[in-house]
Amino acid sequence: MSKQTSCCAPLAREPIGKDDAAELAKVLKAVADPVRLRLLSLIAARDEDTCVCDLLPEFDLSQPTISHHLKILREAGLIESERRGTWVYSWVIPQALDRLSALFTTAPAETGAR
Amino acid sequence: MSKQTSCCAPLAREPIGKDDAAELAKVLKAVADPVRLRLLSLIAARDEDTCVCDLLPEFDLSQPTISHHLKILREAGLIESERRGTWVYSWVIPQALDRLSALFTTAPAETGAR
Repeated sequence: MSKQTSCCAPLAREPIGKDDAAELAKVLKAVADPVRLRLLSLIAARDEDTCVCDLLPEFDLSQPTISHHLKILREAGLIESERRGTWVYSWVIPQALDRLSALFTTAPAETGAR
Repeated sequence: MSKQTSCCAPLAREPIGKDDAAELAKVLKAVADPVRLRLLSLIAARDEDTCVCDLLPEFDLSQPTISHHLKILREAGLIESERRGTWVYSWVIPQALDRLSALFTTAPAETGAR
């Protein structure tokens, strides 16, 4: 069902291993596209699940093209989608975004030794 | 000299504009590669500037290939490099990493009104 994301320590804290780098590169490829970045942002910035019908007017692209981009975001584990009647609704997976945020952080590690 | 990074609000806070999305996609493309992600991490995790001679043993790649990947990271504004005698030394630009970290954060905005 849900993709488990085992890693990730911030890349500035310790060198990323080969396997983690390969897996993270796939996720980053999914967001390394202007349309997909905007789609992800439009979906993430909403308080409720986002209908593809609300995304279409934001782009000068066909519905199949938008659906294809959404599929790439879904396969990268960044969003989930569900058909409800005529339309498909999408929402982000916050843990997937938090993981990318943590990857790039340069903030010092919290020293919560106990 | 240094690239000014005008944006970015977290993508979950408000929809990214077209221009910001295009520019950010370029930076993300630079890190959406396993070798470059590892290079960036190896450089960022060091306390001092990193000699390309210390990066080479970590990869089964030629020096020109490593240098090419470093050039892509440099052109994306993620690292800086400088020749010192025989070798090139690199270091990360923390603001560039922090910007990516902020982009993906889902933490609520701080309400520091004053």
